[in-house]
Amino acid sequence: VRKRKAIVTAATTLFLRSGYQGTSMDQVAALAGVSKQTVYKQFADKERLFGEVVSGISGRVDAFIADATATLNATVDLPGDLRDLARRYVVAVMQPEVLQLRRLMISEANRFPDLGRAYYERGPERVVAALARAFHDLTNRGLLSAADPLLAARHFAFLVLSIPMDRALVCGDAAQFSRSELESLADSGVAVFLAAHGVARQSRL
Amino acid sequence: VRKRKAIVTAATTLFLRSGYQGTSMDQVAALAGVSKQTVYKQFADKERLFGEVVSGISGRVDAFIADATATLNATVDLPGDLRDLARRYVVAVMQPEVLQLRRLMISEANRFPDLGRAYYERGPERVVAALARAFHDLTNRGLLSAADPLLAARHFAFLVLSIPMDRALVCGDAAQFSRSELESLADSGVAVFLAAHGVARQSRL
Repeated sequence: VRKRKAIVTAATTLFLRSGYQGTSMDQVAALAGVSKQTVYKQFADKERLFGEVVSGISGRVDAFIADATATLNATVDLPGDLRDLARRYVVAVMQPEVLQLRRLMISEANRFPDLGRAYYERGPERVVAALARAFHDLTNRGLLSAADPLLAARHFAFLVLSIPMDRALVCGDAAQFSRSELESLADSGVAVFLAAHGVARQSRL
Repeated sequence: VRKRKAIVTAATTLFLRSGYQGTSMDQVAALAGVSKQTVYKQFADKERLFGEVVSGISGRVDAFIADATATLNATVDLPGDLRDLARRYVVAVMQPEVLQLRRLMISEANRFPDLGRAYYERGPERVVAALARAFHDLTNRGLLSAADPLLAARHFAFLVLSIPMDRALVCGDAAQFSRSELESLADSGVAVFLAAHGVARQSRL
């Protein structure tokens, strides 16, 4: 188990630094300090090892989803809770290694579309699906108006993430956003979302 | 001039297919049917040639901006005109070679951040700036309510583009959207934008 973890840690470092094609099983074995046989015994091929790396990084997704769902289910101040959620969401997605994983998937999308789809389903799409379930429940409780909760969840996600994420992806590390800039962008995205889907005065009932 | 055009066309094909690092001036010369000396006479180095390729593809941006600006300046049905504009915008951005250019910039962002910034300023940012000017004027005319026109323009752009663009970037060609799907997503983005920034009944005055 310790060896397995060392292999995944080494592979994460190498894939994010050198890309999928630029990383060999030999390099992973060397950085993890194990034999190549051990790597192949744990992971049948590079694609499976890469899948494990993606899972590892998207492990944080579970914590975020659990937290977001609990917060929205128990909300007594939906605008405030949506702003908190949006701020945590954009700060999480703008972490350098999360951005770099997304950049890597985009770089390799033409050669390895299955990897891209697997990443999309395990990461971004799971968050959107969880938000959609929460928006559906909030609509049933009369706290939100989202006739199409999945579409509303996608709009929410991109209103909150897109401005800094798109610039950072294209412009690289030069596109630095301070935490307060990210939070201000998140707040402005939530304001647009609530203009479309909010229920007037629901937090003052 | 004819040789210059042949060089840019060849370079566009090669950069989009093989990436920046995967393309050599030799290959460009060969595909363009000119000597390497001719390539270097026209373009001092690969970076300048790449800049020309980016300019060529973003040449379409000028036509889009001129059209969008004229439409919004003369609007008598803002919701309808915004929907038309949004539909044309997303269809243009989802063209395979536009997507592939964006994917290329994202892939190379860490190694060549200057290229990414140049692309961002010549392409996406110019559209957003033009929309911001139009939203500012519409607000002055009482047809729109955008206190921060640049922020409103960014929200508009990502509401209209992000859902299909993000999926296509990550999942590759497998993420096919029909024209009617793109148009429906554009319409839904405009509806959210107008909920936040619309002026009630302005089109019925």
